[in-house]
Amino acid sequence: MLLDQIKKENDIKNIERKDWDKLATEIRQFLVEKISVTGGHLGSNLGAVELTMALHLSLNLPEDKIIWDVGHQSYTHKILTGRRDGFENLRKFGGMSGFPKRKESDCDCFDTGHSSTSISAGLGLVKARELKGEKNTIVSVIGDGSLTGGMAYEALNNASRMDTNFIIVLNDNNMSISENVGGVNKYLNNIRTADNYLNLKEGIYQSLLKKKHGNTIVETIRRTKSSFKQLVIPGMFFEDMGITYLGPVDGHDIPAMMQVLKEAKRCKTAVLVHVITQKGRGYEPAERHPARFHGAEPFDIQTGIPKNKKEKANYTDVFSTVMVKLGKRNEKVVAITAAMPDGTGLKRFHNVFPERFFDVGIAEQHAVTFAAGLAAGGMIPIVAIYSSFLQRAYDQILHDVCIQNLPVIFAIDRAGLVGSDGETHQGIFDLSYLSSIPNMHIMAPKNKWELSDMMKFAVKFGAPIAVRYPRGEAYDGLEEYRAPIVYGKSEMLHEEKDIALIAVGSMVKTAVAVYAALKEKGYHVTLVNARFVKPIDTEMIRRLSGAHSLLVTMEENVESGGFGEKVRSFVDEENLACRVLSICIPDEYVEHGNVEILKKEIGIDANTIIEKAVHAWEGKS
Amino acid sequence: MLLDQIKKENDIKNIERKDWDKLATEIRQFLVEKISVTGGHLGSNLGAVELTMALHLSLNLPEDKIIWDVGHQSYTHKILTGRRDGFENLRKFGGMSGFPKRKESDCDCFDTGHSSTSISAGLGLVKARELKGEKNTIVSVIGDGSLTGGMAYEALNNASRMDTNFIIVLNDNNMSISENVGGVNKYLNNIRTADNYLNLKEGIYQSLLKKKHGNTIVETIRRTKSSFKQLVIPGMFFEDMGITYLGPVDGHDIPAMMQVLKEAKRCKTAVLVHVITQKGRGYEPAERHPARFHGAEPFDIQTGIPKNKKEKANYTDVFSTVMVKLGKRNEKVVAITAAMPDGTGLKRFHNVFPERFFDVGIAEQHAVTFAAGLAAGGMIPIVAIYSSFLQRAYDQILHDVCIQNLPVIFAIDRAGLVGSDGETHQGIFDLSYLSSIPNMHIMAPKNKWELSDMMKFAVKFGAPIAVRYPRGEAYDGLEEYRAPIVYGKSEMLHEEKDIALIAVGSMVKTAVAVYAALKEKGYHVTLVNARFVKPIDTEMIRRLSGAHSLLVTMEENVESGGFGEKVRSFVDEENLACRVLSICIPDEYVEHGNVEILKKEIGIDANTIIEKAVHAWEGKS
Repeated sequence: MLLDQIKKENDIKNIERKDWDKLATEIRQFLVEKISVTGGHLGSNLGAVELTMALHLSLNLPEDKIIWDVGHQSYTHKILTGRRDGFENLRKFGGMSGFPKRKESDCDCFDTGHSSTSISAGLGLVKARELKGEKNTIVSVIGDGSLTGGMAYEALNNASRMDTNFIIVLNDNNMSISENVGGVNKYLNNIRTADNYLNLKEGIYQSLLKKKHGNTIVETIRRTKSSFKQLVIPGMFFEDMGITYLGPVDGHDIPAMMQVLKEAKRCKTAVLVHVITQKGRGYEPAERHPARFHGAEPFDIQTGIPKNKKEKANYTDVFSTVMVKLGKRNEKVVAITAAMPDGTGLKRFHNVFPERFFDVGIAEQHAVTFAAGLAAGGMIPIVAIYSSFLQRAYDQILHDVCIQNLPVIFAIDRAGLVGSDGETHQGIFDLSYLSSIPNMHIMAPKNKWELSDMMKFAVKFGAPIAVRYPRGEAYDGLEEYRAPIVYGKSEMLHEEKDIALIAVGSMVKTAVAVYAALKEKGYHVTLVNARFVKPIDTEMIRRLSGAHSLLVTMEENVESGGFGEKVRSFVDEENLACRVLSICIPDEYVEHGNVEILKKEIGIDANTIIEKAVHAWEGKS
Repeated sequence: MLLDQIKKENDIKNIERKDWDKLATEIRQFLVEKISVTGGHLGSNLGAVELTMALHLSLNLPEDKIIWDVGHQSYTHKILTGRRDGFENLRKFGGMSGFPKRKESDCDCFDTGHSSTSISAGLGLVKARELKGEKNTIVSVIGDGSLTGGMAYEALNNASRMDTNFIIVLNDNNMSISENVGGVNKYLNNIRTADNYLNLKEGIYQSLLKKKHGNTIVETIRRTKSSFKQLVIPGMFFEDMGITYLGPVDGHDIPAMMQVLKEAKRCKTAVLVHVITQKGRGYEPAERHPARFHGAEPFDIQTGIPKNKKEKANYTDVFSTVMVKLGKRNEKVVAITAAMPDGTGLKRFHNVFPERFFDVGIAEQHAVTFAAGLAAGGMIPIVAIYSSFLQRAYDQILHDVCIQNLPVIFAIDRAGLVGSDGETHQGIFDLSYLSSIPNMHIMAPKNKWELSDMMKFAVKFGAPIAVRYPRGEAYDGLEEYRAPIVYGKSEMLHEEKDIALIAVGSMVKTAVAVYAALKEKGYHVTLVNARFVKPIDTEMIRRLSGAHSLLVTMEENVESGGFGEKVRSFVDEENLACRVLSICIPDEYVEHGNVEILKKEIGIDANTIIEKAVHAWEGKS
């Protein structure tokens, strides 16, 4: 096997040119085999096999640098830098990350995870190179989707002023117009500079119009979610910015890409190499269902069908269902996603209320201020963004929504530990960053019914409010507890004395286990579902402090600015006669791995909590 | 006086056309007179007089909506909507805000303050209008500077998909190329659509080249900080995005602008009206010194010279000086600003080390990730961004700097209450949002010498670290206390017993007054300069808890996630035998006004603290 000859970076250069395609095929087989077992990002990696090979053949790692935007497409890069064995434990606790990590290899020069950062980081590395008087090549690889993020544009705006080499590879795999990429590609293959731009543009439109359904395709280009597409095809956008444009080039033709990269290295400016790739390339189920194989669970190679059948609804499903209900009940309800109609579950809302649904692209900042505008116009916008991505819009929440006290609802999925995506994607900061903002309100549901109830409450609330819920299976226990949501009030589940467990959202399930175990051990235990993180239910805490000498707060969030700190602070301020044990995420990034393992590792699993609670209680009494 | 006829919105429509210029002159005189007394944003307002008049003549307020990006150019809008009297107390506590405020007038449809939000907000209002089936006109007015912010681009990308009217007015007053705007303006006045774009572009360059210094002007266009300029001049950028481009039009020619706005209202798409204005127009000192009159202190109308002569250095000056020293000592030190070379004091560093200075435009997200790239490349980047603007880069600090533990230094000016700019600009959240981030470290200096010492410490620190300091005069007391900065350690200023004051940064000065007053009253008081907010000095707190039964923490930051909450939390966790009184900003936005008045109003002035401390002490003993 050719792959066996690749033991470290640059070994690929020993593979004969005639064998490159064979190597690409082996890499694809390897990726499909491994990811079918471990799960992971498949489609984007299958699309970037030849591009990565061309980069590795053209560059000299680790002196030269590649920054992978988002980073989940770096699997081939990992294989070519001697990390093939890592795929046995890809994205598993203690195993290899699914993203570039400086601590993993000196061929990973910059960690990524969120979108649209690579050009900024690359520019920093380029300026450092110039100041140090070094001569290496620096390449930022960015997807067309990532170009909808504002910071990529901020970076392009700065790249335009460069008088030194900096290569930006635009890995363009836009699925929504995949049917016509081929034709455009062929037409554009011979052009590079902007000189013949106008004829060209006219030509493209004419040639498309001549095709069957051509009109629709042109419409598609204009209307597709990445309307940016129309800008990059002719390259004029970049040339106008002062960035040299090379391309487009077939992203599955290694010699062609190497030729363009050779030219790109000669430029004394920022240069954009436009590469057209096909997501899922070479594995038919992934070619047919790109969305499903973006981030895949373990699947059967023959059929492409996931191995583990989903038995229970997850929180996203529950949100998806309630959104349609809310939309039917109140025509002011509108929904906004930042490029995640599937991931957030808003697709169903979109199907039922196309006019009231907005996918703004990877543009969290715009999403939030756009929602503020909708609210100022009398609508009730629900912005569904994952916890870690909403970090991008901290200022917009603070400045555009909350100063004006506008009724924008934040549906924050993937809040808490998310597992295999690791450090960049853990949703463990939202309670803190949202709590710091005046006029903001925060809820977290204990189970699937409560998520629905909270969404209904939020729509009637009339001020900024967030509902945060975790990734994965929705808890369907505690069905019997469904008291109406009351502003700022927690929910008493079992009331006794001595030890009170106050759990936030996902931690209620854990708290039920802790409750049972402590009862089993003979303790008197009270169990409270916090429901509100901002404001905290001070009345309940004061009441609990009477008969309880230990309060145990439980949350999937860091300590600073979190729920536990607030409770502790209140207890201290009011001089209440009880101690607080705060169970939360420690002040460190949490790596990738199975969520249950991670919880044990950082001490927020039921067993550790039981131990800590008993210890705290014993120390007390 | 014509101005006397303007008592409410639309009154301007009763002014005869022949008198428009006279009205403009009266408005300018009024603005210069008033702002020379109160201070405020002068240059941008003088530039936007005719533009605002044209909008008011063309629109029907309040049904039609104008969103003012950044908002400090809305003074004429305030005059034309009946708020002339408000200028007596402009930006004063209880007086009129210097920014649009919904609570001030129903002609203010969306609050602004930070840059680049207006297109997003406008799009939201447009979509709400469509859903409600209304027919009003919505106009977002954005400056060319604001277009360098990524979220404006995210919004443009979405505006391109509109099939309904939405007017974006580009108020283009770029100073750096003002000398050639005239020529280009003349040349471009007849063109609107992209059809003749290529000839045009060629033509512009040729005509510029023919001019004296033409070559330099072309270079200037390409190299100026808003390299974006070259995109907007021909309008192709917008046309490519699917946005109709109208202009450029002379922003001081009311009939011309009204004509273009009339055309713009007919478009069934997003339409960009490109208006060329001159900052400071009509007041010679402001025309000559646009930067000085951007945000002006009270000045003498004849000379334009500030009335209150600065007696003492402010923190920005101190930072400015130490930066040059640091740059000389260590050639790895590089400095980054987001469009604030003057405001941050980095101009001197720029003059001495032009190669190591980077002004990235209004692009805080890029600034931070660019710095992360520089640090990954071996540099020691110092990012100087105001506290409230750094909110924009929360995710980049968390995701790009701190996960990789890169040695990026954040110099956070305008931290704490900033005064007359009000709600949008108060820097009262940074301790909270930075504290939530693992690997981040936070310091705050007590006086001007300590700011220097902390910057020197930060350069050697080797991990992410922030130094936050307030707007205005640097405290020059406590010169005798200059113990070396030690990681994580606070500084004991006076050690006694009973009551310990632990103050963060700017509050040390206040704490000195509190200390003296309490001593005067016969209390035993200890005074500690916190120095570090993350990590807090737990050893000191433990030690204090022995002989002190009351700890008073003092900070200019909100409670949630702030210093006091951390201290309180530690005291409770360790069950220390002392109470904590946390002096901090309450959980609400703080409006504009003199900082000393604001401090009284929210209870963080010396007198209130003394009162609270005595009360807490009495309650205790």
